[in-house]
Amino acid sequence: MAGGIGSRFWPLSTPEYPKQFIDILGCGRTLIQLTVDRFQGICPMENFWVVTNASYVDIVRQQLPGIPANHILAEPAARNTAPCIAWACWCIKAESPDANIVVTPADAIVMNPEEFRRVINNALEFTAESNAIVTIGIKPSRPETGYGYIKSTGRKAQGEIEHVDAFKEKPNLETAKEYLADGNYLWNAGIFVWNANTITSAIKTYKPTLAEQMDKMKTYLDVQTIFPNCEKISIDYAVMEPAAAASKVFTHPADFGWSDLGNWASLHDKLSHDEQNNGAVGNIHMYECSNCVVHAEDAKKVVLQGLDGYIVSEKGGQILVCHRSEEQRIKEFSQK
Amino acid sequence: MAGGIGSRFWPLSTPEYPKQFIDILGCGRTLIQLTVDRFQGICPMENFWVVTNASYVDIVRQQLPGIPANHILAEPAARNTAPCIAWACWCIKAESPDANIVVTPADAIVMNPEEFRRVINNALEFTAESNAIVTIGIKPSRPETGYGYIKSTGRKAQGEIEHVDAFKEKPNLETAKEYLADGNYLWNAGIFVWNANTITSAIKTYKPTLAEQMDKMKTYLDVQTIFPNCEKISIDYAVMEPAAAASKVFTHPADFGWSDLGNWASLHDKLSHDEQNNGAVGNIHMYECSNCVVHAEDAKKVVLQGLDGYIVSEKGGQILVCHRSEEQRIKEFSQK
Repeated sequence: MAGGIGSRFWPLSTPEYPKQFIDILGCGRTLIQLTVDRFQGICPMENFWVVTNASYVDIVRQQLPGIPANHILAEPAARNTAPCIAWACWCIKAESPDANIVVTPADAIVMNPEEFRRVINNALEFTAESNAIVTIGIKPSRPETGYGYIKSTGRKAQGEIEHVDAFKEKPNLETAKEYLADGNYLWNAGIFVWNANTITSAIKTYKPTLAEQMDKMKTYLDVQTIFPNCEKISIDYAVMEPAAAASKVFTHPADFGWSDLGNWASLHDKLSHDEQNNGAVGNIHMYECSNCVVHAEDAKKVVLQGLDGYIVSEKGGQILVCHRSEEQRIKEFSQK
Repeated sequence: MAGGIGSRFWPLSTPEYPKQFIDILGCGRTLIQLTVDRFQGICPMENFWVVTNASYVDIVRQQLPGIPANHILAEPAARNTAPCIAWACWCIKAESPDANIVVTPADAIVMNPEEFRRVINNALEFTAESNAIVTIGIKPSRPETGYGYIKSTGRKAQGEIEHVDAFKEKPNLETAKEYLADGNYLWNAGIFVWNANTITSAIKTYKPTLAEQMDKMKTYLDVQTIFPNCEKISIDYAVMEPAAAASKVFTHPADFGWSDLGNWASLHDKLSHDEQNNGAVGNIHMYECSNCVVHAEDAKKVVLQGLDGYIVSEKGGQILVCHRSEEQRIKEFSQK
């Protein structure tokens, strides 16, 4: 899934070139490239599928030349994750009816890819032999209010995989603290594992209209006319919640250094820091600066003096200097 | 004179493209273009001469296409103002032996060009009929320690033009305050008026070696071999001081809104300000910013939040954010 527009990282991420296509960590690979790299040994390039907005297809081809051109699915309109996942899974099933599938966002990071592969392999082994819907549940390290949670029963199904009790929407801080203390609540990273029959059957059961629409999407013209009319709904609402209520969902608790890189604060967390707690990507020269997060990989040279706790970013001729306490206003700044 | 490298305005001004060639005021004209514009009605385009570093000749041609190509003198090396002025005046005299000449830096600004023209015309009338060396003396508005001073006798020679007593180097603050209180001290703006015979004779008298070198500079090859060997000396030391000692120098006190735009503080003074005392050139959007000076005419969009008293500039992919109190370190920043 590579359809996001990443507006919170303006000007680094823009609707024309959003964050999944940016080398946001300054490591030489973009987030979508890192996402593909992470599956080395699990999934050969010819088995990858990318669902993205039509305007990003060229970027995907350029950044991931190994993916077959007909595996890049161009959404004519953004309809949230349920139609996106349904379309990909219908296509995969048509090509390979017994496929075992991992669904992942293209814009998250994983600091421990080896552990990621171990967890994914466990889940794939389970779904290869069952009609289970498996979600990867990230063990929470803080009472985060920005994520949805998976409530595990704690009851083991196979190996580390547990039966899920329910999905929970983003909590307030008090509730998030209770979740953290409870120990059975996990972050929902939007990473799902299932086989092609399981997910197509589940969509037929819980969202029959969506399934009918998918059945009809055969040609390019079908996509243009049908996809934009699909209900705009997340896979969590459409499938995971009703399936969990019917006790058909499992989770693999995991701890592989996952972050959704949802804001500048989380990027600052993931960058290496100098002695003054600055994290910087690019040719950045700082004097009397502290606690800054700087990203300007295209700029020839950036000199910063006397800044404490600022976000500084340049991309494509657009420049932002903003105190970190005000980062929730960046989307508004970018649109004015 | 357009040979400066303007290192204090990095990254706006660089050795590759220094400040005289920049639209530093955001008015649509560069400083050298504004300098030429200022002489409208006084000097036709075919009578302009520009002395600049060889590496800036193409920029001069591009920005001032009306100036004859052979009037752009390419210095093979920077030798301060005496050789620069001598070369131009020797060339002018060869082309037009009775020429009446104004010498001016190309990187200063004048807020009242009409008054400038009145003053220059007064001076030109005087030098058309005498062998006077006339300097334009700017009436000081503050005890500035960054300029040299002209000490007038206060004794009138013709109209507003007065006999000069002496030239004074940049004073310390105490001395500058005395100069301001005295009333007979004027800022030396580096603007000189004289006829071709006067200046060439004066150089022969006070710097005979330089005059001999100029006499020998006939071909391109002469320039390459002779000019770099000229003594590196200012016109003030070489001619004005000894000529003043011999009572041959005059000054026209003037008040036409002159500034040498020597630093970011003086640029901030000259820009129009918003209600928070910010001066900005470019597509600049400021939130909770005050007392800033911002110049980023090439950037598509700049968003600044929560900055008080900062310099922010972008040019050619180089970015600076620096507190105004630290601007004397900018040259050092640019070189590291």
